[in-house]
Amino acid sequence: MTKVFLKKKIQQRVLLGHPWIFGNEVGNVDGPVNAGDIVEVFTHQGLFVGRGYINPQSQILVRLLTRDKEEAIDAAFFHRRLQKAWDYRRKLGYVENCRLIFGEADEMPALIIDKFNDYFVLQTLALGMDRWKGAIVDALNSIFSPKGIYERNDVPVRELEGLPQQKGFLGAPFDTNIILRENGLQFNVDIENGQKTGYFLDQQDNRRAIEHIVKGADVLEAFCYTGTFSCHAGYYGAKSVLGLDISEHAVNTARRNAQLNNLEEVCQFQAVNAFDALKQWTREGKQFDVVILDPPAFTKSRENIQKAITGYKEINLRGMKLLKPGGFLVTASCTNLVPPSLFLEIIEMAAKDAKKKLRQVTFQTQSQDHPILWNIENTTYLKFLIVEVS
Amino acid sequence: MTKVFLKKKIQQRVLLGHPWIFGNEVGNVDGPVNAGDIVEVFTHQGLFVGRGYINPQSQILVRLLTRDKEEAIDAAFFHRRLQKAWDYRRKLGYVENCRLIFGEADEMPALIIDKFNDYFVLQTLALGMDRWKGAIVDALNSIFSPKGIYERNDVPVRELEGLPQQKGFLGAPFDTNIILRENGLQFNVDIENGQKTGYFLDQQDNRRAIEHIVKGADVLEAFCYTGTFSCHAGYYGAKSVLGLDISEHAVNTARRNAQLNNLEEVCQFQAVNAFDALKQWTREGKQFDVVILDPPAFTKSRENIQKAITGYKEINLRGMKLLKPGGFLVTASCTNLVPPSLFLEIIEMAAKDAKKKLRQVTFQTQSQDHPILWNIENTTYLKFLIVEVS
Repeated sequence: MTKVFLKKKIQQRVLLGHPWIFGNEVGNVDGPVNAGDIVEVFTHQGLFVGRGYINPQSQILVRLLTRDKEEAIDAAFFHRRLQKAWDYRRKLGYVENCRLIFGEADEMPALIIDKFNDYFVLQTLALGMDRWKGAIVDALNSIFSPKGIYERNDVPVRELEGLPQQKGFLGAPFDTNIILRENGLQFNVDIENGQKTGYFLDQQDNRRAIEHIVKGADVLEAFCYTGTFSCHAGYYGAKSVLGLDISEHAVNTARRNAQLNNLEEVCQFQAVNAFDALKQWTREGKQFDVVILDPPAFTKSRENIQKAITGYKEINLRGMKLLKPGGFLVTASCTNLVPPSLFLEIIEMAAKDAKKKLRQVTFQTQSQDHPILWNIENTTYLKFLIVEVS
Repeated sequence: MTKVFLKKKIQQRVLLGHPWIFGNEVGNVDGPVNAGDIVEVFTHQGLFVGRGYINPQSQILVRLLTRDKEEAIDAAFFHRRLQKAWDYRRKLGYVENCRLIFGEADEMPALIIDKFNDYFVLQTLALGMDRWKGAIVDALNSIFSPKGIYERNDVPVRELEGLPQQKGFLGAPFDTNIILRENGLQFNVDIENGQKTGYFLDQQDNRRAIEHIVKGADVLEAFCYTGTFSCHAGYYGAKSVLGLDISEHAVNTARRNAQLNNLEEVCQFQAVNAFDALKQWTREGKQFDVVILDPPAFTKSRENIQKAITGYKEINLRGMKLLKPGGFLVTASCTNLVPPSLFLEIIEMAAKDAKKKLRQVTFQTQSQDHPILWNIENTTYLKFLIVEVS
């Protein structure tokens, strides 16, 4: 097996357990470098660091899979890791749906697996992980006997690894329009064409957090996508819910979701640009008891961070202005480029401009099936805040 | 009414809504200064800032009660504020027990009221608030028709205001040993002699957070006081629970609480010094699935902050060592002198020394009936963390 020797000065990041090793951190390499192969990593002095996969085409040369010298990377390894991840989710109370593998946080760099009850959707985002897709599928079949496994590898980041974008069945085909249950409700999930893996499990714990504040309330949700927060609001007793999304297709699914839960009387949806609608309704003096904002990332690069800040500030300012005094703003941000402290600063700036006072009800992260490792910053990505606004 | 004029340069703190005005922030005073009286505060140029109570004996000269020029401070004012605070708690889903008034976070500086179903415990921690005790009791009687109201003003901070330490009934006497219900359990509360107001409502939401991780587990709780976390662990299905507290009296109450919930087979308690016990058991190699640490503040002054840091680090390091691989550490800190970021740093240091890896399950604050105002730092005080330790 090819041996990779780190430079004399090892980065603190690697010592503290981060599994990424960049090309400029490597001294010399002993053996052939075949993209996707498993290699062994050693310190300058030859001490074993770990075993992982290599890709000279990627900025991240090696991603470690194990730091245990005795642990071989083989089919049994993947079975063990998947079983461990499932045991962990069950310990936290997840039964039907969960993010089964959350990449680095499960010591499985570049692997994402979402479990939608009997169906599994996976993403292998690096070449070295992609190689093991067969073993991963075998492990899923062995542990869960699923009704279907689907690959949602239609993501641009794969190209940085020299991998094609692709999607499709990993095993027997099945109807990719499924229904999942969450918090007592049901939702249509389009595994083939929905965003990301088809459904945002990362808000599943947070959706319960609106239970009390929406009772008897007039609720507005902007960026509602397929209406999961909106339907939760209706289910928890909102008087009226209006969900907005720019996508006609998303709004149609949201309407179907409302019907599926017998909430079509309470939950209305409109296909509009939320920025425009929030602006116009502020001018018209519309008022709601609860405003929910769960927007997309606004930016995917650090260079455009100011664009994201401006976007978040704008919609939160509008949201605050649309609230009756003492109303609640439920607001989220899903990009790790905006850390929690910056997110709170943006909300504070918006409140200042809107001349509003805030009182924090709760400030949460993504659901517990997406664990956080403090030394791996991209595992802290979702911010979920509820504030009273007056 | 006496008029207090601020200096030309108003502190950002006051502008942003903080209700405290220190003596050195005041320019001149027009009228008599009688400790405890309501005064009006103006800017240098005579613009109305707010109305509050004054105490020249206190470092905090004035604490504002309102910034509304039209709002008089009278009995109706206190009735209105209590009603508003109760409406807010009900909106968040609190039914029986809650912190009804959380001082500054409810625009009622230096007032604490805990609602234990039909019983109320209050603290008036400043002279200007103490003056209105009658009006506050009248408001409680009018809104709640309570079975009893008790004053727990046996706190040293009152002396800084020239107030005596005292406790007793505010109205008809009643049996101060009550039972309250929380999350499906029952607990003995000693209103007269328990710590603070007799019961720590600030962890009531957090106690539910251990529900899944304690199932079938061997649980150790250090600093268990009257055993509320321990009993929750038993109720949620722990195999065994061992609670430690240095106070024989607390441990006896903890045992009675276990009996009250038919958990005396599962929950055992020992009156020991937790520091010593954790140290000794680490040496003996004892192992648990879950360790809960909910210690007292360790320090009450900024000068002794290092003592608190050392204490938190020590117990968390011990706690981690007592866990089986993959076990869960449930750890809290209740002093606002240790901000959330410092608390996480302490835990990280402890993990490094214990040679353990952590994975965050949840990081929370005090319960939602203790709201947080970002510009009033002492409203953010409780940190509650669950991590997987391996």
